[in-house]
Amino acid sequence: MRTNYCGAINTHYLDEIVTLYGWVHRRRDHGGVIFIDLRDREGLVQIVCDPDNIETFELAEKIRNEFVLMIVGKVRRRPEGTVNPSLHSGEIEVLVVNMEILNTSLTPPFLMDDEHISEFVRLEHRYLDLRRPVMQSNLRLRHKVTMAVRVFLDQQGFLDIETPILTKSTPEGARDYLVPSRVNVNHFFALPQSPQLFKQLLMVSGFDRYYQIARCFRDEDLRADRQPEFTQIDIETSFLTAEEIMTLMEQMIRHLFKAASNIDLPDPFPRLTYAQAMHKYGSDKPDLRVALELTELTDIMQGVPFKVFKDAADKPNGRVAALRIPNGSQLTRKEIDDYTQFVSIYGAKGLAYIKINKREDGLQGLQSPILKFLPEKTVFTILERTGAQNGDLIFFGADKASIVNESLGALRIKIGHQHGHATSDWRPAWIVDFPMFEWDEEENRWQALHHPFTSPADGHEDLLLENPGQALSKAYDMVLNGSEIGGGSVRIHREDVQKKVFRALNISEDEAREKFSFLLEALQYGAPPHGGIAFGLDRIVTLMTGSESIRDVIAFPKTQRAQCLLTHAPDTVDEKQLRELNIRLRKIDQPKN
Amino acid sequence: MRTNYCGAINTHYLDEIVTLYGWVHRRRDHGGVIFIDLRDREGLVQIVCDPDNIETFELAEKIRNEFVLMIVGKVRRRPEGTVNPSLHSGEIEVLVVNMEILNTSLTPPFLMDDEHISEFVRLEHRYLDLRRPVMQSNLRLRHKVTMAVRVFLDQQGFLDIETPILTKSTPEGARDYLVPSRVNVNHFFALPQSPQLFKQLLMVSGFDRYYQIARCFRDEDLRADRQPEFTQIDIETSFLTAEEIMTLMEQMIRHLFKAASNIDLPDPFPRLTYAQAMHKYGSDKPDLRVALELTELTDIMQGVPFKVFKDAADKPNGRVAALRIPNGSQLTRKEIDDYTQFVSIYGAKGLAYIKINKREDGLQGLQSPILKFLPEKTVFTILERTGAQNGDLIFFGADKASIVNESLGALRIKIGHQHGHATSDWRPAWIVDFPMFEWDEEENRWQALHHPFTSPADGHEDLLLENPGQALSKAYDMVLNGSEIGGGSVRIHREDVQKKVFRALNISEDEAREKFSFLLEALQYGAPPHGGIAFGLDRIVTLMTGSESIRDVIAFPKTQRAQCLLTHAPDTVDEKQLRELNIRLRKIDQPKN
Repeated sequence: MRTNYCGAINTHYLDEIVTLYGWVHRRRDHGGVIFIDLRDREGLVQIVCDPDNIETFELAEKIRNEFVLMIVGKVRRRPEGTVNPSLHSGEIEVLVVNMEILNTSLTPPFLMDDEHISEFVRLEHRYLDLRRPVMQSNLRLRHKVTMAVRVFLDQQGFLDIETPILTKSTPEGARDYLVPSRVNVNHFFALPQSPQLFKQLLMVSGFDRYYQIARCFRDEDLRADRQPEFTQIDIETSFLTAEEIMTLMEQMIRHLFKAASNIDLPDPFPRLTYAQAMHKYGSDKPDLRVALELTELTDIMQGVPFKVFKDAADKPNGRVAALRIPNGSQLTRKEIDDYTQFVSIYGAKGLAYIKINKREDGLQGLQSPILKFLPEKTVFTILERTGAQNGDLIFFGADKASIVNESLGALRIKIGHQHGHATSDWRPAWIVDFPMFEWDEEENRWQALHHPFTSPADGHEDLLLENPGQALSKAYDMVLNGSEIGGGSVRIHREDVQKKVFRALNISEDEAREKFSFLLEALQYGAPPHGGIAFGLDRIVTLMTGSESIRDVIAFPKTQRAQCLLTHAPDTVDEKQLRELNIRLRKIDQPKN
Repeated sequence: MRTNYCGAINTHYLDEIVTLYGWVHRRRDHGGVIFIDLRDREGLVQIVCDPDNIETFELAEKIRNEFVLMIVGKVRRRPEGTVNPSLHSGEIEVLVVNMEILNTSLTPPFLMDDEHISEFVRLEHRYLDLRRPVMQSNLRLRHKVTMAVRVFLDQQGFLDIETPILTKSTPEGARDYLVPSRVNVNHFFALPQSPQLFKQLLMVSGFDRYYQIARCFRDEDLRADRQPEFTQIDIETSFLTAEEIMTLMEQMIRHLFKAASNIDLPDPFPRLTYAQAMHKYGSDKPDLRVALELTELTDIMQGVPFKVFKDAADKPNGRVAALRIPNGSQLTRKEIDDYTQFVSIYGAKGLAYIKINKREDGLQGLQSPILKFLPEKTVFTILERTGAQNGDLIFFGADKASIVNESLGALRIKIGHQHGHATSDWRPAWIVDFPMFEWDEEENRWQALHHPFTSPADGHEDLLLENPGQALSKAYDMVLNGSEIGGGSVRIHREDVQKKVFRALNISEDEAREKFSFLLEALQYGAPPHGGIAFGLDRIVTLMTGSESIRDVIAFPKTQRAQCLLTHAPDTVDEKQLRELNIRLRKIDQPKN
């Protein structure tokens, strides 16, 4: 057994005889001496093979990168001038007494300290990619995070309870992965999109506090940074108010950031209502590191001659808003054109602006293609409300509110980070007072904004049917630096309220009974008031490590085409297996997306 | 928020005002006062509703079993003579000051303290079944066990690393569950039977110490006490010998028994070779609580006139063995007939015996239908070897060794527990020195006894091809009270040895490359010596709780027909879903098992 990890040796162990195991990170011959950087999961240490020790020196000459070695040697101080301050072991080296080659290695397809390897090659040889110090450190941090969560929740009386992977569709709206049952012919299991129903049942069972670090599955078209399987910190508790749940969860997140990364998050987290967040940031997951804010202008644009603004302001779902960029008047024509292009991704048809060259000169000091369409009074109100200063620039969004929010919201973040209007610290927040429902224009009906088990806010029960658009819920999201890292709600525990919500959603009693029979039944047998939350573990660790993709914090991820390049899953299967499952393949008519 | 859990209040809280949440376990009207046993996950407390408090008394009259209540009340000592010593809260009661009905309940299909409910009804209403104190306690113990494991392994430097659920077939030999891929048409994921290959890859990646409490899946015909999905404590480590791994794992198991159940297991665990275990107990998972042992007789039966014994002794794979039952001569004809019936389940064609009425009288003191076929000398050797005493009975097994072992091994346990030859303590052991291979008579070839990545014992490499039946492996199983609770091995880390094993197993290079390509490839790039183990969590918790079935330690288990009676999974699916997955159902020709 080893006496030390390579990377953990320092001057504390001077003159000790150590036994080390590790991989040859690099070999150098220098002045008749062979130096080996030996690597294990804790880091590197310099091994010295002196030609006086003939046997080990001859062995050392055979050594190549990534060979596996056992080293017995003596720790000594490095000679003056050869200290490497970037290594924990940089002040010492180990003089070999004895050495064994435990395994050889072919020349690997990339060096372990190369930072410019294509992701394709990395995923194909994931077992080598995971040797790279950055990947070692990512997965170790992930372990620390989960352990910190477990310790915290255990201390708070939460029980870790496993829920099924082979189960029935959960009502999350995304596509399920299906698993044909062999024994129950022509029947299928579904992999869970979340343990939502089970955790609510556990509350009905009286477990009081449940958690699980749970694998979840969604067969989505893989946009951006999604994985077919992902991991949730899944939590549910009984008899607590939304306020109490949020306080506890905040503590947990503060604890894990401190325990795993020594980061101090604010206490308490600021709270924003959904309405405030949309109003000021155009987003329900605002990046609060960015100091820029939107300014509401809808009310002053009704009836202005500028048709684009007027039409947006007159629409029931329209919005006109401004985004002031301090010192933005230095933006070039080219830059403004690029931003116009950028907001068009979100559906914005243009990007009007005013440059404030000199505010004291009134309209003379302004420069803008749209000035001529706006009454003077309106322009002054714009300057007033945005607080524009000399040298600023004001962008405008005018369209359906959703387009204004998405485009100006995204522009706010982009410019904020590009032009120095953002801090680099950690800015968590709670978003609360979500609407119960949002209008689905395609299907022409109300949809649950969270899920249909979310409780309405106190006093909003009657609104469910009278004025669904005004009903607020007891849902809460936790956001961090512009990402939603968790979301949850107090659930409905009374059958009569649940029925009202189904009615508002236009879900018939039959449909509800078919889909959620066991949950609705459970609500009849003494369901306690309860609520919970689920955090996206992959996303939290991605943020903490500063990784570009959640693939960098998952040991064996899938590509965006849902393939594992290492194992070549998914794969074809034998006809015999299909026959046992009582299914057959369809002919492929055309390639799918 | 509650001030206390119901079951946790005692005289320490006398005169305090407490706020409690819980379920009505039972309501009694007695002498004009209403008593409610209020239940939460920590247990029961007696609530007293005095008629003086008119408002709460009227509420209390409406209360039925399983209603959910909020109670504010004052803790007081129970009157003399009404103390309930079986309850933690049995010395006190809570006089209601204020009460709220948080939810009502229909009359549940069974009472929460009924112990004779059919499992079918329990599983159908699992959310109520889980309210029963025994189920609460089982799942809480399971939580304690996993937490104890996590804390231990974390302290020992093991990293919790998640491996994929959507993956490729693992070479475990059982049937895989398949998941059709929508994006990759006509391709399928398989759910893992274990993370075996991934944990070995993580060792190649240099993580050094890995663990995961991992969900595993096997689509087996569900015999006895199996589940389609089950949970493993999955562990792998690099650079340790079998000896070092076993020592560490023993410590872990001792720790978890102590931490979760305050049970002291022996230190160290006894070790038996596979040969010894089969020899003495007829089993590689011996129940060491049973004091009975088998006695080898094969050598003295060659050439005896009794054909049954002679034939078995002459066979290359035959065995003749005895099982001495102290005081067994009191067994009746009927009991012996029943045991004969019992061993026939295991293929034994009969169950010869000798009763020792009086040993001093030589053959006169013995009573047996087979005496006349055995030479006198042989009989005396039997008495000698078994150490038979007056009043004992000796059973015999003679057949293929596998049948003798299974039948006498099972008889040993049955009689041992029935007739007081067993202790009731905890008897773990390691079984070591397993053979590398076992002969598969059906397929007429060698099969890996563990799996094809198991390392041969030191010095046994050459035997792999020369004499496969004699080659021992570096595998080890942990057994406890007759159950295998864990098994593992040192793995092969060198490609040349792995190739030899494949050759011994008659697996062609092509076949090996196709099945295990990425593992074989990984072995070429500096794989470290490594090994590991997997423990069956469900089984460990079943043993610790004394449950009859693993279904009693799993929150939402499946039946033996792999169905969830609560959610009705598996279920039929829409044609649209099948079309998206590019599969269609076959017509059902005949019912499947």
